[in-house]
Amino acid sequence: MTDFEKLFFPRAVGIIGANNQDYGGGYFLNSLMGIGYDGPLYLFNPRLKGQELKGYKVHGSILEIPDDQPIDYVILAVPAKICPQILEEVGQKGVPFVTVFSSGFSELNNKELEDSLLKVARKHNIRFLGPNCLGLYVPKSKLAINRYQQANSGPLGLICQSGGLAIYLSQMGAFSYGTYSSKVISIGNQVDLNFVDFLKYFLTDDDTKVIGLYLENIKDKKTGQEFLKVVKELSLKGKPVIIWKVGYGESAKEAIMSHTGGLAGSEAIWKAIPKQTGACLVENSYDLVSLAMGFNYLSYPKNRNLGILSLGGGASIELTDLMEKFNLKVPQLAEETKEKFKEFLPEVNTIIRNPLDLGGSGTMMEVYYKSLLTLDSDPNVSTVVFNRAWNYSPEYTETIVRAKNNMRNQLVCVALKIADSVAEYKQKLRFKTALFNNGIPVFESIERAAKALDQMNTFREFLEKRKK
Amino acid sequence: MTDFEKLFFPRAVGIIGANNQDYGGGYFLNSLMGIGYDGPLYLFNPRLKGQELKGYKVHGSILEIPDDQPIDYVILAVPAKICPQILEEVGQKGVPFVTVFSSGFSELNNKELEDSLLKVARKHNIRFLGPNCLGLYVPKSKLAINRYQQANSGPLGLICQSGGLAIYLSQMGAFSYGTYSSKVISIGNQVDLNFVDFLKYFLTDDDTKVIGLYLENIKDKKTGQEFLKVVKELSLKGKPVIIWKVGYGESAKEAIMSHTGGLAGSEAIWKAIPKQTGACLVENSYDLVSLAMGFNYLSYPKNRNLGILSLGGGASIELTDLMEKFNLKVPQLAEETKEKFKEFLPEVNTIIRNPLDLGGSGTMMEVYYKSLLTLDSDPNVSTVVFNRAWNYSPEYTETIVRAKNNMRNQLVCVALKIADSVAEYKQKLRFKTALFNNGIPVFESIERAAKALDQMNTFREFLEKRKK
Repeated sequence: MTDFEKLFFPRAVGIIGANNQDYGGGYFLNSLMGIGYDGPLYLFNPRLKGQELKGYKVHGSILEIPDDQPIDYVILAVPAKICPQILEEVGQKGVPFVTVFSSGFSELNNKELEDSLLKVARKHNIRFLGPNCLGLYVPKSKLAINRYQQANSGPLGLICQSGGLAIYLSQMGAFSYGTYSSKVISIGNQVDLNFVDFLKYFLTDDDTKVIGLYLENIKDKKTGQEFLKVVKELSLKGKPVIIWKVGYGESAKEAIMSHTGGLAGSEAIWKAIPKQTGACLVENSYDLVSLAMGFNYLSYPKNRNLGILSLGGGASIELTDLMEKFNLKVPQLAEETKEKFKEFLPEVNTIIRNPLDLGGSGTMMEVYYKSLLTLDSDPNVSTVVFNRAWNYSPEYTETIVRAKNNMRNQLVCVALKIADSVAEYKQKLRFKTALFNNGIPVFESIERAAKALDQMNTFREFLEKRKK
Repeated sequence: MTDFEKLFFPRAVGIIGANNQDYGGGYFLNSLMGIGYDGPLYLFNPRLKGQELKGYKVHGSILEIPDDQPIDYVILAVPAKICPQILEEVGQKGVPFVTVFSSGFSELNNKELEDSLLKVARKHNIRFLGPNCLGLYVPKSKLAINRYQQANSGPLGLICQSGGLAIYLSQMGAFSYGTYSSKVISIGNQVDLNFVDFLKYFLTDDDTKVIGLYLENIKDKKTGQEFLKVVKELSLKGKPVIIWKVGYGESAKEAIMSHTGGLAGSEAIWKAIPKQTGACLVENSYDLVSLAMGFNYLSYPKNRNLGILSLGGGASIELTDLMEKFNLKVPQLAEETKEKFKEFLPEVNTIIRNPLDLGGSGTMMEVYYKSLLTLDSDPNVSTVVFNRAWNYSPEYTETIVRAKNNMRNQLVCVALKIADSVAEYKQKLRFKTALFNNGIPVFESIERAAKALDQMNTFREFLEKRKK
C-alpha cells in the first residue's frame, strides 16, 4: 500500500505556475491562504521570478531549492504541453507527490502527452494525482482547493472525479450537515493514483470513519475488481462507503467521456454492488451528504422500527408514509407505553398511537419532552424521529437537546422548509447547530431521512450476515 | 353541480363557538383578523353573550340575527355532541354553507352522531364541510384558516384531507415557490361535501388553473368513479390535477383510519390512474408544490429535449444524469449552434456540447447571457435548464432576467443549497423573487425539477393522444 503520509502531511508544499490571479497556480495560492496554511511554501514561475506573492518569494525553477529543503507535495499548474518537462525537474528535486492540475490530456484525446507524463513520473518514483484535477483538501494540514474552506476536520473521506463536486460535497457536509471532512481527494483522469489507492489508504486512516465517492467511471476490469475488494474490506471494518455513481443515460455518458475520459459502465452492474460489498449507492449529491451525516451522528440502528412524533394528522401520515416507502417500520405502541402517555396527554385532539400526532398539545414544551421520552421507552422502538416545519425557538431547541440527553435510543430530526423567511432561517440555523453539537442529525426532507435510515439498516444487516 | 358562489364569496360569515383564545372558534376569529377579513362577521357564544371580541359583538344564538341580515357561511366550533342541535338553529336561520370544525365523529367511531348531523343538514338544505376540518382559505374573499395567511390570490386550487397540510401546502406555494392559491379546501371526514364536489367546481372556476389534492382515502366505489371522471375532464380542459396519495404502508393506513376514518386503497389502483385520467401522481408535499409551480410558470414543454447550462464538469453531469433518469433528453447541439458558441467561448476549460459546462467563463455575465440565448436558439432544444449553487448577485439576477426576456423557449432554474449562510440566503430570496416576477420557476433540487418536467411532458402527451 502506498504510504501517503507525505502527501497528506507534507513537510513543504510547492506551487509551480503560481501567479497573482484567482486561476491556475494563483487559485491554489489563494486556497492555501484562505484556509490559513502555515507550513513552508515554495512558489515557482520563471516569469515572476524574484517577485513576491502573498509574502512568498517566487523562484524560477524547483531546482533552485537546496537539497536540505525537501518538498513533499507539488501542485503543477502549467500548460499541458510543458507538464512532462516540468515534472522532470520535480523528479530531479526528489518530490514524492504531485497534483497535476493542468487539463488537456486524454479528456481532449491527448493520450500521448498523458503517457509521457506517466513515463517521467515512473522514472523518478513520483506518484501523482490527475491530470485535470484539483488535488487535495486536508483540513488537518491546511491544504485546500478553495479559498472558502476551513480547517475543521471531521470523519468524512471524499474521493471525487470532479474538483467542483469535491468542493461542493465537502462544503455541503461542513456547512449544512454538520459533517466535516478528513481528507478530500479530487482524482481527475487517474493516470497514476486512482480511487482504489485512496480507498486502501482509508482502511487504516483513523481520521476517516465514513467514505463518499463521486464516480463517473472505472478504467478497467482489474481496477474494478480491486475496487470491489477494498470496498468490502472497508464495510467489514465498519467504514461504510457511499457511492454516488453517475452516467447511466446516454448524454451523461458522453459528457463523462469528455470530462474525465472514461466509460461509465452499465446500471445493472452498479446496482449489484451493494449486496456484494456492503456499499451504499446514492443518486445525487444531497443524498450522499445526508447519508454521511447519518453515519456521522448515529450508530447503526438496532432494527428498522421507528417511533414517530409529529404535530398534525396529515404531517404524521406524510412522515409515516415515506418511512414505510423506504422499508422502515412504524410498529404499534406497547400497552405500557400507551398507559404512560395517558398520564400526561390531553384526550382531545391527540391520538395515542405510533405515529404520535400531538396536535396543539405539541406547543407545550413539557408535553413534547415527555412524549419523546415515552416513545423512546417503548420496547419496540429503536429510533425516534420527529419532524418540524416552523418555530425553532430557543425553548424548543433546549427541549430537544434535554430529551436527547435522557434517551436510550437515537434521535433523528427532519426540519422542513415551508415558507422562506430570513427570521425563521436564522432561528433554524441556531437550532441545527445546537442539535449537531448534541449528536442529533438534522435532515432537510423526510425522504432523505428515510433513505438514510433505510441504507444504514441495510449496512447493519450486511455486517450481521457476514458475522454469522 | 353545487353552486358554491355563496360559500366562496359569502355575504356574511358567522363563527359559532367564538372565544378570545387561539383555539376553537377563537382560532378562526384570529385567522380572519390575520388576513384582514372586512366583510360582515357575526360571533356566537352563549357564555360570552354581550361581550366584544376584536371589535365584534358576541351573540348568544344565530337565531338572534334578523332575517334581513343573511349569513351565507358559518364555522361551527362547538363540542361534537351539541353539533346537531346547533346545526338545527343554523338551518332555521337559512344558512346555506357550514364548516364543521368540531372533531369526535366517525374518526373516533361516533358514526351515529355523524349521521344525525347529516340528517339535520339535509332537512334544512345545508351543505357542509367536515366534520373534523378547517374549511376554507379563499384569499379573494379574505377567508383564512391560519393567522399568517395573506390575501394574494393565485392559480392553485387545493383540496386536502388534512387541515394542517392545507395550510402547509398553501404557505409553501406562496412563500417558497411563488405560487399562490385560488381556493384551499380542508374537507375532513367528507360526510356531506366531498372532494369530487370541489373538483367539479374547479372545472368552471376561472381563478383555478392547476389543482392539488392531498388524499388519504376515497369513501366508496361511486365516489371513486365520479372522481376519475372529473379528473379526466379537468385534464382535458387543460387543468392538471396533481394527486398526492398517502397510505400504501400498513402503519400509514392505520393512522389514516383514525385521522379521517376511511380506507386507503391499494397502491396498484392508484398507480393506474394517471394513464386513465391525465392526473399527475406525486409522493410528498414538496413534489406537489414543485409541480404546481412548474404548471404555474411554464407552458407545456413542446418535447422532452433540454438545453443544459452549468458551471463545472461534475455539476453538469449531475444535472444531466438526473434529468435522464426522469425520461428527459439532452440532445446533441446542432452544428450551427456549435459555430455560434465558438464565436464567444474561450477554448480552454469549456467544452462546446450539451450539457454546456462553462467552467470559469461562467462568471463572466456576458458569456453567461450569450450562452443561454445560444442554447435557446438550438433547433433541438425546447426548454433551457440551468443550475446555480452560490453567488446570486444582483448582476447575475439581472443577467438571467434579461436572457429570459429574449428567449423563444422556456427557462428553468435549479437553485441548490450548498452551505448554510444568512447572507447567501438573503441574496437568494431576492434572486428567487426576481425570477418569479419574470415567469421563471426556481426549483430547490435537480430531482424535483426533473420530476416536474417529466410530469409536465407526460401531461402534454396525454392531451396530444386524446386530441388525435
